[in-house]
Amino acid sequence: MKKFVNDPKQFVPEMLKGIAAANPDTIKYVPEYNLIMRADAPTNNKVSIVQGSGSGHEPAHVMVVGPGMLDAACPGDVFAAPPSDYVYQTAKLLASDKGVLLLVNNYTGDRMAFEMAQELAEADGLKVTTLFIDDDVAVKDSTWTVGRRGVAGNFFVMKACGAKAEEGAELEEVVRVGEKVNSVARTMGIALTACTPPAKGSPLFELADDEMEVGVGIHGEPGRRRAKIVSANEIVDILLDAVVPDLPFESGDKVALMINGLGGTPISELYLLYGIAAEKLAAKGINVTRSYVGEYCTSLEMAGCSLTLVKLDDEIDALLAAPASIVNRIF
Amino acid sequence: MKKFVNDPKQFVPEMLKGIAAANPDTIKYVPEYNLIMRADAPTNNKVSIVQGSGSGHEPAHVMVVGPGMLDAACPGDVFAAPPSDYVYQTAKLLASDKGVLLLVNNYTGDRMAFEMAQELAEADGLKVTTLFIDDDVAVKDSTWTVGRRGVAGNFFVMKACGAKAEEGAELEEVVRVGEKVNSVARTMGIALTACTPPAKGSPLFELADDEMEVGVGIHGEPGRRRAKIVSANEIVDILLDAVVPDLPFESGDKVALMINGLGGTPISELYLLYGIAAEKLAAKGINVTRSYVGEYCTSLEMAGCSLTLVKLDDEIDALLAAPASIVNRIF
Repeated sequence: MKKFVNDPKQFVPEMLKGIAAANPDTIKYVPEYNLIMRADAPTNNKVSIVQGSGSGHEPAHVMVVGPGMLDAACPGDVFAAPPSDYVYQTAKLLASDKGVLLLVNNYTGDRMAFEMAQELAEADGLKVTTLFIDDDVAVKDSTWTVGRRGVAGNFFVMKACGAKAEEGAELEEVVRVGEKVNSVARTMGIALTACTPPAKGSPLFELADDEMEVGVGIHGEPGRRRAKIVSANEIVDILLDAVVPDLPFESGDKVALMINGLGGTPISELYLLYGIAAEKLAAKGINVTRSYVGEYCTSLEMAGCSLTLVKLDDEIDALLAAPASIVNRIF
Repeated sequence: MKKFVNDPKQFVPEMLKGIAAANPDTIKYVPEYNLIMRADAPTNNKVSIVQGSGSGHEPAHVMVVGPGMLDAACPGDVFAAPPSDYVYQTAKLLASDKGVLLLVNNYTGDRMAFEMAQELAEADGLKVTTLFIDDDVAVKDSTWTVGRRGVAGNFFVMKACGAKAEEGAELEEVVRVGEKVNSVARTMGIALTACTPPAKGSPLFELADDEMEVGVGIHGEPGRRRAKIVSANEIVDILLDAVVPDLPFESGDKVALMINGLGGTPISELYLLYGIAAEKLAAKGINVTRSYVGEYCTSLEMAGCSLTLVKLDDEIDALLAAPASIVNRIF
């Protein structure tokens, strides 16, 4: 296994320790619950935004904690939902007078953990709501999902909810904008290689040297089909042909375009894809007015990408433009 | 070849087109000279900072163009120096009354191209200086270098020079801080896999499933030795044992610590390494007061990392802390 790792069982805690070490003034690591939180959270008069999921998708979600984004992230082990008790303890720690919003990608294991945690927290009298994200158009029902999967489009839901919460909005209002963004976000991904969870030590699946998985999930779940690898132009066509008609996105629409790397693809290739996708969207009359290129939601070291479109109106545009600051930054 | 690419010969231009498409208000792509520049450059009363090198190291250098960083980047093809004529034309386009500083990683091909370009520009009466960066402690003289190689520590030289230029400093002052930062920056890298240049279509070298290259160069050049892969703790020891005694960094020093990913290593592993390195440095009495974790200078999709230390004084600390803004950002 070609990884920087000590004991694979300690992979996630050692990563979290590193995040806290790199951000001593702003970030707190709570080892009892495997929790990364803003050092100044919770804040009264502000809904606390918490995202939980399996690890292995970094920077999502433990590296997008900060003002205007998440107040805390509650990760499980690699590709495994966090224990519901940890989520419950996280909700208690983050409890504010305006309540706690739990953002969850739509996977059966995560749903169970978060719904149970919400029940436990409500029994304590806390105000908690859970919002499920399901932006992946590739498949309906999958290895670990009923319905559509939540993938890189979750970034936009976190960003919008984070900005709305920062304005001091009530929980119901924060949920409203989160659901609104989720309803107009669509994603599709392609894998060129598999990935290796540290505790497994071998690739999750096999892809031949000339193959790609079209519509792959972020845990290596199968997509729509396996195909021979084609040119970047043709790959962008495949992604746009899946994403554009799904909402549908139409001529005259203003959109955000994200090209997300799955972990092992260099950013040079992501910008190349972005240029092609922007040109093809312009030819359809769809106006890209916000751009996102880089790693937002990964699958360990998988080579691959996903393409997300979000239909913008003035409200969503303003929330995405609002200032925010996170753990993972270049300066 | 598992890459998102059309014609490999067009890989770099198509990437540059994507960068410009994603940043239409702030970035200009000049296809004649393969040049990425700030749309508002050159600015009078400000030294123009230009970095040139082969491509394949993104985000260095075409994605770190912006206020407080580079005014332009002049890339060659993948792992190849830019033609001296393109560098010369770049210097002419970026000419300001305060002059142009060319930042160059120390490789023989790049030295030749930039020294020739500087001569051509000076013959035109332009004020141009070239500063060579050589932070890699791994080897003296290498496949394409006489002396030490320039690697991820170049980020700190660019950042400091960018900040100093933004203050309106004279060219000599900007050069002084660049040389000062270079003189206290030390880096060493480790590769877990090779990488594949698009035009070659096959890996640059072979590494067995249980091997790593200790002291690898950012073009896959050999390092100090090939060894069996070891734990993350032991890898951090190898890197610190090479970097710390070289300056040397000593108990009581304040330092910036960078864990740089070489392209194919997920950021989760980089934070894990950061946490270990910060702890080991603290045990030596070396105080990490600035942290950098992520991809700064890559080798296409190579799995691996490098560790950089920069000794800080008040002047360097303030330059690194100054505001800056670049192409490649998460929001």
